[in-house]
Amino acid sequence: MSQRFAVIMAGGRGERFWPQSRLKRPKHLLPIIGNTPMLCQTVDRLAGLVPPENVFVITNREQRLGVLEACPNLDPAKVIGEPVGRDTAAAVGLAAILVKIKDANSAFAILPADAAIHDTEGFRATIATAFETAETGEHLVTVGIKPNNPATGYGYIQKGEPFGSSENEDVYKVSRFVEKPDLPTAEKYLESGDYFWNAGIFVWRTDVIKKALAVHTPELWRALGKVEDGISKEENLDSLLQKYYPKLEKISIDYALMEKADNVLTVQAGFDWDDVGEWPAIARHVANDSKGNVLSGRGMIREGSGNIVVNEKDHFTALIGVDDLIVVQTEDATLVCPKSKAQEIKNLVKEMENNPDLEHLL
Amino acid sequence: MSQRFAVIMAGGRGERFWPQSRLKRPKHLLPIIGNTPMLCQTVDRLAGLVPPENVFVITNREQRLGVLEACPNLDPAKVIGEPVGRDTAAAVGLAAILVKIKDANSAFAILPADAAIHDTEGFRATIATAFETAETGEHLVTVGIKPNNPATGYGYIQKGEPFGSSENEDVYKVSRFVEKPDLPTAEKYLESGDYFWNAGIFVWRTDVIKKALAVHTPELWRALGKVEDGISKEENLDSLLQKYYPKLEKISIDYALMEKADNVLTVQAGFDWDDVGEWPAIARHVANDSKGNVLSGRGMIREGSGNIVVNEKDHFTALIGVDDLIVVQTEDATLVCPKSKAQEIKNLVKEMENNPDLEHLL
Repeated sequence: MSQRFAVIMAGGRGERFWPQSRLKRPKHLLPIIGNTPMLCQTVDRLAGLVPPENVFVITNREQRLGVLEACPNLDPAKVIGEPVGRDTAAAVGLAAILVKIKDANSAFAILPADAAIHDTEGFRATIATAFETAETGEHLVTVGIKPNNPATGYGYIQKGEPFGSSENEDVYKVSRFVEKPDLPTAEKYLESGDYFWNAGIFVWRTDVIKKALAVHTPELWRALGKVEDGISKEENLDSLLQKYYPKLEKISIDYALMEKADNVLTVQAGFDWDDVGEWPAIARHVANDSKGNVLSGRGMIREGSGNIVVNEKDHFTALIGVDDLIVVQTEDATLVCPKSKAQEIKNLVKEMENNPDLEHLL
Repeated sequence: MSQRFAVIMAGGRGERFWPQSRLKRPKHLLPIIGNTPMLCQTVDRLAGLVPPENVFVITNREQRLGVLEACPNLDPAKVIGEPVGRDTAAAVGLAAILVKIKDANSAFAILPADAAIHDTEGFRATIATAFETAETGEHLVTVGIKPNNPATGYGYIQKGEPFGSSENEDVYKVSRFVEKPDLPTAEKYLESGDYFWNAGIFVWRTDVIKKALAVHTPELWRALGKVEDGISKEENLDSLLQKYYPKLEKISIDYALMEKADNVLTVQAGFDWDDVGEWPAIARHVANDSKGNVLSGRGMIREGSGNIVVNEKDHFTALIGVDDLIVVQTEDATLVCPKSKAQEIKNLVKEMENNPDLEHLL
């Protein structure tokens, strides 16, 4: 069996979890769900699937030290800090180069750093199936999450015919990738039973993704070839990235490649999955009281339901007579926002960016 | 002219300003309005009316050191800590004893510690009139505040005939004191023009209040006589209060005396007055933005009106899409409460009192 690698995408900034999340302490470095940072949970979930020394993390320069502090078991040489964000196509290309240099006859998985997945065994079984499927052919394999609500925040994958033997009954050809739908469309997708959420989890042979990138994103692949050449001449990776990365096209792997390739398969996930995209999502994962209030840390809620209160350390937060409010408390900042306006939090952070006095809060 | 004294009543606890106010840091020791503690503003306002060395403060034992720290110009010997709260009749009686020992042929004013009064000159003119009126007869003189809204949180004073010469055209006989009215009654009072708010400001000759207390609260006055005897024997005041104070009847001076006495006059206040009874009241005194938001300290309010945000130190509070909300931030606690539920804050504090883990927040 060829070697297996995993490359975790940890480039996000998580403005939507302000004030807990900051530029240097983004969502995946916080224990938004559970007791350890989301990234560490993602690393731990790979145990038994991929040897620990074969786990890469692609993050950004500002967060690289934070990643190593949060997950000290990671090999520092395999935690890569992008000098600038260039979306997922560039990151996947960089991943392909890094893995290829270690072992060109390998397969690797791409995983977001910050999803909440409780069923670790189910996750391992699905990813094992994805590896086996990828290794025994020339397919790009995605993991499809069976939707349980008409979410408009994710891309969808329409499944086609079942693929291969009856042993892998959860593997399908992919008819098409579709962008985030509007609500009526998402409702149709849900009802049809033919659509999965695109969780950004991919598994492929290193030579297969290499070929696909060369075909569908030739310029990007050529530029990354220069990074590879430099590495083979033992040039410094950081300097190489500084030189070539900013010029790469900023485009997602879905748009640049997955939507265009005709050799895509999807494995239906045998595990729960939630990208926990904003504060209201945590109510799906942590204990609620009888009135649907979530209280993380110390506090008291008098007359009120559906609130989400998150405190750092020993801080105490009291709510009186409010419903469906998000109240998040850190040492230097407090946020108060209705759950229905959670999508405004990132706009608040953008507004704060215009005020030099608030730099320490970003 | 006989000597003038002032006795400031600083016994309240101010639960309604939690989390800023605490047992040892009550409302009158906080700069709720302005830059200095409310008590210090009250002391400063007396300049020119009463010699500084003739200013007493009656507070409670827990707050006594806090009073001396907040207002270092006070004479420590004149800052009295009640061992237990016994309402205003007992405090007025104690004040009469303390002043009488200094100078039996004097007059003194009783003033609450924590009202907001911006027109200092107007205040001094009114109190000077009250002193003159009290000193030239045998009347109990109150200050009446002309109401500007049908408040239901104050007692009212119904004025009678004008009293005395045309020089003191703002002095009236008092027809009656009335307890806090319901709203329709308060509206009638407001419309009639015959009613004042009872601000708890009184001025009287020491011998006149002494006689009135002896007539209307004979038991209380007898018990306080023992404190006076002890002082004359140079016994320790704290020990005397510890011995006799807990046994005193707990009753307000309005109920025990003012409502019964027939020698009461009222001077119409020539100054603004606000007892700032709860968080929403601060909006009447500090700058609002164009949407009626009050922001004390650092913060940002996106899409929202009528909010009150109070931060300690450099803390930053962001509100998104909420209206008429009180958000108060201290180092160890945060409160979120609609303005319409501000009266619930003291119930929250009571509920917290039942939890030993929260003692440090009281």
